[in-house]
Amino acid sequence: MSTLLRQQIFDALDALVLIDPHTHIDPHHPAGQTLTDILGYHYYTELIHSAGVSRKDVEAPGLGPKERFGRLVEGLGPLENTIQYSWLIELAQSLFDFKDDRITPANWEPLYDEAARRMAAPDWPQEVLRRSKIEALFLTNDFDDPLTGFDTKTYIPCLRTDDLVFNLHKPEVRARLERASKVPLTDSSIVDSIGRLFEHFTQNGGRACAISLPPHFTPRRLFLDNIPSIRKSMREVLGSNLNEMAAEDRDNVSQFVFWTLAEYCQEFRIPFDLMIGVNRGVYEGGVHQGRDLYDSRVSLIQYKELFNSFPRVTFPISVLASATNQELTSYAWIFPNVVTNGHWWYSNTPTFIEHDLSARLEAVPSTKQIGYYSDMYKLEFALPKFAMYKRLLAKVLAERFVIDRGWSEERAVELGRQVLRGNVERVFYAG
Amino acid sequence: MSTLLRQQIFDALDALVLIDPHTHIDPHHPAGQTLTDILGYHYYTELIHSAGVSRKDVEAPGLGPKERFGRLVEGLGPLENTIQYSWLIELAQSLFDFKDDRITPANWEPLYDEAARRMAAPDWPQEVLRRSKIEALFLTNDFDDPLTGFDTKTYIPCLRTDDLVFNLHKPEVRARLERASKVPLTDSSIVDSIGRLFEHFTQNGGRACAISLPPHFTPRRLFLDNIPSIRKSMREVLGSNLNEMAAEDRDNVSQFVFWTLAEYCQEFRIPFDLMIGVNRGVYEGGVHQGRDLYDSRVSLIQYKELFNSFPRVTFPISVLASATNQELTSYAWIFPNVVTNGHWWYSNTPTFIEHDLSARLEAVPSTKQIGYYSDMYKLEFALPKFAMYKRLLAKVLAERFVIDRGWSEERAVELGRQVLRGNVERVFYAG
Amino acid sequence: MSTLLRQQIFDALDALVLIDPHTHIDPHHPAGQTLTDILGYHYYTELIHSAGVSRKDVEAPGLGPKERFGRLVEGLGPLENTIQYSWLIELAQSLFDFKDDRITPANWEPLYDEAARRMAAPDWPQEVLRRSKIEALFLTNDFDDPLTGFDTKTYIPCLRTDDLVFNLHKPEVRARLERASKVPLTDSSIVDSIGRLFEHFTQNGGRACAISLPPHFTPRRLFLDNIPSIRKSMREVLGSNLNEMAAEDRDNVSQFVFWTLAEYCQEFRIPFDLMIGVNRGVYEGGVHQGRDLYDSRVSLIQYKELFNSFPRVTFPISVLASATNQELTSYAWIFPNVVTNGHWWYSNTPTFIEHDLSARLEAVPSTKQIGYYSDMYKLEFALPKFAMYKRLLAKVLAERFVIDRGWSEERAVELGRQVLRGNVERVFYAG
Repeated sequence: MSTLLRQQIFDALDALVLIDPHTHIDPHHPAGQTLTDILGYHYYTELIHSAGVSRKDVEAPGLGPKERFGRLVEGLGPLENTIQYSWLIELAQSLFDFKDDRITPANWEPLYDEAARRMAAPDWPQEVLRRSKIEALFLTNDFDDPLTGFDTKTYIPCLRTDDLVFNLHKPEVRARLERASKVPLTDSSIVDSIGRLFEHFTQNGGRACAISLPPHFTPRRLFLDNIPSIRKSMREVLGSNLNEMAAEDRDNVSQFVFWTLAEYCQEFRIPFDLMIGVNRGVYEGGVHQGRDLYDSRVSLIQYKELFNSFPRVTFPISVLASATNQELTSYAWIFPNVVTNGHWWYSNTPTFIEHDLSARLEAVPSTKQIGYYSDMYKLEFALPKFAMYKRLLAKVLAERFVIDRGWSEERAVELGRQVLRGNVERVFYAG
Repeated sequence: MSTLLRQQIFDALDALVLIDPHTHIDPHHPAGQTLTDILGYHYYTELIHSAGVSRKDVEAPGLGPKERFGRLVEGLGPLENTIQYSWLIELAQSLFDFKDDRITPANWEPLYDEAARRMAAPDWPQEVLRRSKIEALFLTNDFDDPLTGFDTKTYIPCLRTDDLVFNLHKPEVRARLERASKVPLTDSSIVDSIGRLFEHFTQNGGRACAISLPPHFTPRRLFLDNIPSIRKSMREVLGSNLNEMAAEDRDNVSQFVFWTLAEYCQEFRIPFDLMIGVNRGVYEGGVHQGRDLYDSRVSLIQYKELFNSFPRVTFPISVLASATNQELTSYAWIFPNVVTNGHWWYSNTPTFIEHDLSARLEAVPSTKQIGYYSDMYKLEFALPKFAMYKRLLAKVLAERFVIDRGWSEERAVELGRQVLRGNVERVFYAG
Repeated sequence: MSTLLRQQIFDALDALVLIDPHTHIDPHHPAGQTLTDILGYHYYTELIHSAGVSRKDVEAPGLGPKERFGRLVEGLGPLENTIQYSWLIELAQSLFDFKDDRITPANWEPLYDEAARRMAAPDWPQEVLRRSKIEALFLTNDFDDPLTGFDTKTYIPCLRTDDLVFNLHKPEVRARLERASKVPLTDSSIVDSIGRLFEHFTQNGGRACAISLPPHFTPRRLFLDNIPSIRKSMREVLGSNLNEMAAEDRDNVSQFVFWTLAEYCQEFRIPFDLMIGVNRGVYEGGVHQGRDLYDSRVSLIQYKELFNSFPRVTFPISVLASATNQELTSYAWIFPNVVTNGHWWYSNTPTFIEHDLSARLEAVPSTKQIGYYSDMYKLEFALPKFAMYKRLLAKVLAERFVIDRGWSEERAVELGRQVLRGNVERVFYAG
């Protein structure tokens, strides 16, 4: 009974057209050109490397895409158990009519060629979106992105701010900020400079500000004009050509810029997506984008002052570790401005999704849960990633609501709809 | 098969008459007078507020109970998915013959009126207890509660000590202690003063001492007479009319009083309930009782010295975060004086109960697990809260014992009985 | 369907002959002589003590084995729910044809006698291995074990190094090291002394180095010759007859020795098993081996420098707390030299195994997961412990791979085989 029920709920959910609230899509090249753009995704390259292929062979800088694909396929065997591999197969089957359930040195080439043929069609991105039932998606834009040359109704700008908060000590970042804001950067002008970015983004369809944060980060309120030491830190950092300034100065500037971003989110009435818990560059010898890990000893109590200070800013929050999910659930249960957001990265696998999702669905108001985002770099991934999530959502709704709590199937589907689609509109399209 | 099996085990467990080992019942007004006493429970008001209703509208100080109920119902929609909402519906259906599965602006009024009618019956509290199959329950008494005017066999006193440990710097708390102990409070008399409270409670049927503790609290042994700094702290704190004494002095006094409580629990042979992990007042703008959250980075290693120092005191322990449940399970597996106690607050939802309960049932001696307490403020909540727990207990027994381990249904039910009822007697009625 | 499927997968997995990659077997007395050797296992004595039997009665120093067994049986009642008890019953049923499902004061004696009779057979150890389908197993050898008098193909030496890293301040440990290495121990010779141990072990069939580590331990690179303070610490510690040296000196020596071990693992091409997270001696009044617990606030980020510094050393890692399992999963997903290893101690119970195993199977390359080790002290435990694991592995494969992901049963079994047997060969027999 449970299996059939799950299938029926899945089918109902799978009929929805969705908005994907967080991706890394390049709107100028949204889809892959070949399957190498797919298999080159760090979720594969890092696993292939982890399973024993050298970084040099994984990244194969001198090879053409087809040769590189063949090389990568040789390293795929040990990944066949992973959920990431299942995305690849579902993608190949759904978008390119692949008939097998494994990609091997013996069968990859026809798949590769067929995919290249379809991907070359001028309307391929639209075709992928249509088949994936995605009508719009959020980008991850550099703060100095001109936001021109694409349809911002479909590809929705999102101001990504990691560089502003953590990298202003780098001259090239400051130079980019000066060019983007058209204001010389000083400790007096920096607030205005950042304000110009918010103007630019919101005038061009931007609907969110976003940042990823390390586990130790604890936002605190600082007052630029009242605290001479902040001004001093700002001058140190903004005037520097070196990376070797005092850690305290860098931290003061990070804190000040972060708080300023929250103030602008309030002023411009856009949500501030916080992605909490990543340590960058932990594995120094890793492949591109395959070096980041985390310390799961993080608590949302670190955000107490922030949540209290900005009651009118909505904070859609992603946590990297499932161990933090109960806190997220509880904070969203209590704080009106805290919203649960998707299943991020190392928690984006079925066991953690199922556990974390179950906890949220039974204790957070239904209007405050953004079910899922794909985090994808290429459009082709929306279909298998959302399919995984929808299967898990159907499983939880079937087992924990229909069977355990006696809900009707219709009511369960209704909750699924709200989490999948309704809340994305509610949170990001309310302003 | 599993569904039927679960039902049968549930039915057997549901036939038991229970003792509820932790509540916040006021024995002079144990049941609600109207449904507003039910919907005014912080589990609802905080969720309604979190879902977007302003605190002013939630608390509606000027309104009569019926008008306030109607107002609150308007905010219930986003809560329909929550387990807390399911308690409300089950309560309404079981106690007031409510026929729908949602309470809405369209149907609340007849329910409200019918409930008010029944609740007005003079024997309503006894009726609720009878229908809920609860024969006795533990209270949460202020240390200066006179403990008069109620049947202490049914409403069992429990000495709650948060104020003694954390608030002796407040003149009003010291004044209450002087009145209750009938001893002027000094650094020399404080141990005796506290002893008087234990005498008073145990002479009036008290069966436990209890406290809730913040995550950072780490009990340590202090010797009043040998450590002049403790005496000095005591004088500072006991002589103060201000809240601004040194943190170190306050901490010394908290430590000393806490250790003294444990010594009295040993002397008077009563268990010391520890509820570990809450941060008070995290959300400053929250509704009444809806401001507390936590930092899940807590460890029972902080209690090493306490557990070792009091081998004859039983410590029934509740942890706020499911992340701490494995430690609780392991510490109860090793320490004879550590007992697992219920599923507290933010862990009192099905996903966490199921996971935490499963872990305990398979690794902690069956005699050392107190299954559940309601934590209720009004008697009406015992029925749906215990029903939730019994369903989960039946599920775990069916799936993990009968199916996975080949147990007979009878043996599974027997384990459920011990956890639900037997151990409450064993732990609290042994003295 | 699920129940039958689980059984079929279990049957296929149960047909395999295995190598147990971590035990505490004494190769000179690998099996029990009586059931008291079984019930004297700390997993039982500590639970019996925790359930209320005094340590004196549990350890009963003056009693003969049969009388002691009878005494212990009297304390078994409260343990009947535990998974540890189920190992005991399955062991008794499988190896000694016990017919009941409980061992009680009324039925233990014939079981005890029958077991003693069988255990007295000269080929009992071989018989147990045969029935348990174990062809070889790894030992936990003191660093000064002569490794003689047993078949090192069946009983594979493993250099256990806790004493070297944490106890060199004890004169008896230093004396043992001098005898074993045949080199006088100084700050100049210590590196060579340790090298001699690796030579001795690898020349005698040793296939791994292993250590258990407390939660706070954070390996860091130290340079003996360049850092005078390390030399000074070394001299302090190596010259000491007292335990009261400076904590910093002891810590420096621990760090230096630990790093030296990793260097030798690289040179001798053997894996370095890390068992992370135990606090020793937490419960001072506990029974033998029943005093250790933990602080789950540990992170693999503490091992960042180690993992980066030794890319050619394989680190099979066990974590004590399930809360750390997601980090282990993620670190094994990213670092080529990190391998997941079994389910250790307080995480070796079904609920945690099921959750942790599910997470690993879907995100770590299949070649990098060592499914299980028994950690046993007597051969008789391999059968029930591995049976528990195989049932859980079958459950996860049935539910999460065959049902949830549409895998064939054969493919699921193949993954199970790799995790159970293939990877033990791959990791420990590659050199």
